[in-house]
Amino acid sequence: MVHALIIGAAGMVGRKLAEQIAQEGSLNGKPLSKLSLVDIITPAVPAGAPQDTSCSACDFSLEGEAEKLIADRPEVIFLLAAIVSGEAEVDFDKGYRINLDGTRRLFEAIRAAGDDYCPRVVFTSSSAVFGTPFPDPIPDDYLAAPLTSYGVQKAMSELLLADYSRKGFLDGVGLRLPTIVVRPGKPNKAASGFFSGIIREPLNGQEALLPVADDVLHWMASPRAAVGFHIHAAGVSGEAVGPRRSMTMPGLAVTVAEEIETLQRFGGEKAVKLIRRERDPVIEKIVAGWPRSFAPTRALELGFKADDSFDAIVRAYIEEEGINV
Amino acid sequence: MVHALIIGAAGMVGRKLAEQIAQEGSLNGKPLSKLSLVDIITPAVPAGAPQDTSCSACDFSLEGEAEKLIADRPEVIFLLAAIVSGEAEVDFDKGYRINLDGTRRLFEAIRAAGDDYCPRVVFTSSSAVFGTPFPDPIPDDYLAAPLTSYGVQKAMSELLLADYSRKGFLDGVGLRLPTIVVRPGKPNKAASGFFSGIIREPLNGQEALLPVADDVLHWMASPRAAVGFHIHAAGVSGEAVGPRRSMTMPGLAVTVAEEIETLQRFGGEKAVKLIRRERDPVIEKIVAGWPRSFAPTRALELGFKADDSFDAIVRAYIEEEGINV
Repeated sequence: MVHALIIGAAGMVGRKLAEQIAQEGSLNGKPLSKLSLVDIITPAVPAGAPQDTSCSACDFSLEGEAEKLIADRPEVIFLLAAIVSGEAEVDFDKGYRINLDGTRRLFEAIRAAGDDYCPRVVFTSSSAVFGTPFPDPIPDDYLAAPLTSYGVQKAMSELLLADYSRKGFLDGVGLRLPTIVVRPGKPNKAASGFFSGIIREPLNGQEALLPVADDVLHWMASPRAAVGFHIHAAGVSGEAVGPRRSMTMPGLAVTVAEEIETLQRFGGEKAVKLIRRERDPVIEKIVAGWPRSFAPTRALELGFKADDSFDAIVRAYIEEEGINV
Repeated sequence: MVHALIIGAAGMVGRKLAEQIAQEGSLNGKPLSKLSLVDIITPAVPAGAPQDTSCSACDFSLEGEAEKLIADRPEVIFLLAAIVSGEAEVDFDKGYRINLDGTRRLFEAIRAAGDDYCPRVVFTSSSAVFGTPFPDPIPDDYLAAPLTSYGVQKAMSELLLADYSRKGFLDGVGLRLPTIVVRPGKPNKAASGFFSGIIREPLNGQEALLPVADDVLHWMASPRAAVGFHIHAAGVSGEAVGPRRSMTMPGLAVTVAEEIETLQRFGGEKAVKLIRRERDPVIEKIVAGWPRSFAPTRALELGFKADDSFDAIVRAYIEEEGINV
């Protein structure tokens, strides 16, 4: 029996992860005894959740909160909660408080629990730990030299995860997620938003802005793949992972042109016509500083699975969100 | 005119750095207006120090202390103070408190000072940020995957240094020091101690233990070179350093056999005979996990200078410590 705690269960990936675990009723074959879902707003109870499911709102980074979250010793803890890149860049203090101090407080609470308590902690990191210049593809042993405060906070948390794991205080696995495409819901202000927008908006009959050239290449994974990474990480052997606890997750290196070809296949010419090309030098410059492709050898060897194709990514979006095409 | 603050001025490198700056009366050509020396014990006043020199004892990592240290706005701050590797491994809390929280409190105090205060911060890091397996030599863009808490604390501090520099809160340069050989003074308990011991003890007529094989290769720099790195770092252009603020310093990859050949040249056969070979599997295992050699391309391009040879390292030791050979 497994008790799983998801911190950040109201976010897009956290919510889908909770839904998937609840639906399966198990985690990597072990029956689910309890599901604890927390976020800064109260997460929804997912369909099929065990009777013993708790959904609560708290700021896990505040003093004393982490201790409460782990009071009944969940065997698996997913830490997805974070201040996103843009906000962490604008609000320096808040970014460090949540993304670094929150992580550390949780790890300290686990360490302080003692009594051989050593949960699997799945930490959601990001390819934002990398900064230009890059080799192409980026190998697993390339340095983390982030160029945003968010990336720094994630890279520092990865180092803590490794050290607390090495000392036996917890058993961590860190996942450097690709950009998630297709993000469901409304467009957001993220500079990477158009990678989802040029699929999502046209499939919903709406215009989408494309601010970069068609040959821009980017590293992507579907929400479904991201959920799969988290579930697989909950069960992977810590010994097999070794001391380098955080890894680049497998994704697909997809160009904007390839995205549009896929859109054509699913939505036809009428969908493609809804893409309005309007180059934005600011976004072009940001995107030029992002990783384009990786060689995620370690993650593949450990059994983490990328999407099969960009077509599969779009098909998953259409299925999961019930889009009419 | 330059006001320089040295935090950790009673340590071996800090003391020599203070002495060198005081003796020169300037820092990279700029006359020294003031020298502030602090450590956990009161540092000595170095010969030739300017009239306006203050030596004080404080724990810079305690709340409120960093603010006092920077109250009169030193233009250059050397942060050498640290809990060493062995102690940080044994006392987890103390290591993080001094080596991580202390660094962060100093950086936060500088940021909070505002008023365009943006000092050059020279941060003393270590090749302990690297962990096996390594390529040989290790390039500048190899990942920091430390296998000690000390290495993690240094790697995290490097990330902070880069982020605070990128945001314009300070102007940082981080130095990953090689193992310092020949360390003057008494033997210490460090696993790397024998690299100095097999030179120092025989030159002082005493027996030295050699716990590893003669073909063990290690990355070394003299105390004089380490002082030179710090002084050069105080004057190097932050723009030239770029966003990756911390760098491997140039050293020499020297085998134990080469050390002994040099000892022979300076101390003759009678010195070499004072080396007692007694293999220690524990130390052999630790040493096997250490970096052997680096390709410190960036530091060399920026003008950081290694020792000329291991003979020069031993000659510097003999001169500086006034050894009779």
